[in-house]
Amino acid sequence: MQNKIQTLAIIGVGLIGGSLSLALKAKGAVGRVIGVGRSTANLQQALQLGVIDAVATLEEAARADIIFVATPVAQMPQVFAALAPNLGATSIITDGGSTKQDVIAAARLALGSRFNQFVAAHPIAGTEKTGASAAFATLYEQRKIVICAEAESDSNAVERIKAMWQVTGAHLHCMSAAEHDDIFAAVSHLPHLLAFALVDMLAGMPRADQYFNYAASGFRDFTRIAAGSPEMWRDISAANRVALRQQLQHFRKRLDGFDAWLAAAGPEDIEAIDHVYTRAASARRAWQRHIEHGEPMPLFNNGGGQEE
Amino acid sequence: MQNKIQTLAIIGVGLIGGSLSLALKAKGAVGRVIGVGRSTANLQQALQLGVIDAVATLEEAARADIIFVATPVAQMPQVFAALAPNLGATSIITDGGSTKQDVIAAARLALGSRFNQFVAAHPIAGTEKTGASAAFATLYEQRKIVICAEAESDSNAVERIKAMWQVTGAHLHCMSAAEHDDIFAAVSHLPHLLAFALVDMLAGMPRADQYFNYAASGFRDFTRIAAGSPEMWRDISAANRVALRQQLQHFRKRLDGFDAWLAAAGPEDIEAIDHVYTRAASARRAWQRHIEHGEPMPLFNNGGGQEE
Repeated sequence: MQNKIQTLAIIGVGLIGGSLSLALKAKGAVGRVIGVGRSTANLQQALQLGVIDAVATLEEAARADIIFVATPVAQMPQVFAALAPNLGATSIITDGGSTKQDVIAAARLALGSRFNQFVAAHPIAGTEKTGASAAFATLYEQRKIVICAEAESDSNAVERIKAMWQVTGAHLHCMSAAEHDDIFAAVSHLPHLLAFALVDMLAGMPRADQYFNYAASGFRDFTRIAAGSPEMWRDISAANRVALRQQLQHFRKRLDGFDAWLAAAGPEDIEAIDHVYTRAASARRAWQRHIEHGEPMPLFNNGGGQEE
Repeated sequence: MQNKIQTLAIIGVGLIGGSLSLALKAKGAVGRVIGVGRSTANLQQALQLGVIDAVATLEEAARADIIFVATPVAQMPQVFAALAPNLGATSIITDGGSTKQDVIAAARLALGSRFNQFVAAHPIAGTEKTGASAAFATLYEQRKIVICAEAESDSNAVERIKAMWQVTGAHLHCMSAAEHDDIFAAVSHLPHLLAFALVDMLAGMPRADQYFNYAASGFRDFTRIAAGSPEMWRDISAANRVALRQQLQHFRKRLDGFDAWLAAAGPEDIEAIDHVYTRAASARRAWQRHIEHGEPMPLFNNGGGQEE
């Protein structure tokens, strides 16, 4: 490999960090992987499983060729601050956080004039499992990696991070951090908020067990994401609160519309509900064909979509 | 069988109606099954597959021992009105609709003094497939059937409908129609509305394909129910609009709370989001254990739940 990474440091050796290590090791694209984390037990397991080659301190990690920060987003500001004083002259810091504007702001603040050594990224991959033992080498194959370069980002650093992710079999997508946060607020953070809100609403009812008793397969799928990590999603909601509020406002306006239609329930109100349900079903089915068979997504509005 | 049904008429020979026929036939609990429907092709297929023994008119169906109305709820008023003039003296009409107060009101209106021959029911079962070819004998095994008897309901008729469903391997649950509609508004109709509304919101965006392009597995599960029949869910939303609006109001109030928390984003606001997400995740995981391993649902509120 031309661009072989001598030392990769993983901060937070869980599913996301560990799987990057295993993917690069499988392709012979990394020399040595060192791991930093809060849980000694998890790091020991990572060592035993060959996910990392050694346990390290943040000070040691700061001098690695590439430092992958794969902690929850809420911990990243402190991690960046701890890395900053010892950061190697040619080291590159990248991350795997689900929000980008806040991570970039934290990196800019902590790294100062070395911010050009930071490249923000978001691998769109995951399973329900967590910890080093959940990591596997093929997690990123055929998955999307969003790279959000800033004006200051060193172009060689950006190219090295792109090359690293390409080795894992992932598809690269480049966009601005603002665009990233807007899109993921709509397709991920808002659905999580809605699922958590619905389950909590039922749990708060005086006869909650009666409601849960009659919940069936539609409810199971709709609320599956509400079984996720409350801490992680709380942090994401807070970190991306501006974009999330914007999507939430759009959605609340739509619910106001539904309330008015259901209250009046005239023929044109039922027609309006029909219109929403029909377009949604059509879009949802088209999306399923898109992800399963690669069929292009049709446009439902007159706006022009564009591929990254 | 003591209570063998001589003739069962199925109005609407799809997944729900056809599967009842096949379940009763498999147990030798029915003599002859006749089918009524709008699609000749579907009825011919039902005949070929042995789902029904003969195609019938509504007039003939009205004289069957048991008449199972398994059409969409919006068609039931006309079906009841068509059955009424020829209804056999000892015939029992029952239904499989997803809403109960409106179906009962329609039956009361159409049947008049013969309303005592009607027993409202809702089998909690289904798949994504429709039509007679989707029917199978074990659909109702271990599933719930809600029976909503009214004060006028003939007790022998209620017992016969209960006995019929018990043959299919389903579990019987009895409750009032108002309670049914309230519960299903919360655990089924509202989640459907939310999933349809979210997908339609994305489809309506100027760069909709960009959003759909980054939707992942959480989105897939959350919106699976938005690929369902728009007509059916429009009808259910309209039929159960009073209970649905009530649950929608609760939910909108919760979203107002989220908006306020995200706007302020102080420590106590993040704490409030954490509280909701944590209780929701805890309830969702408990529910999963409940449906998979039969563990009892814990109470999250101080209200006392009760089993039917």
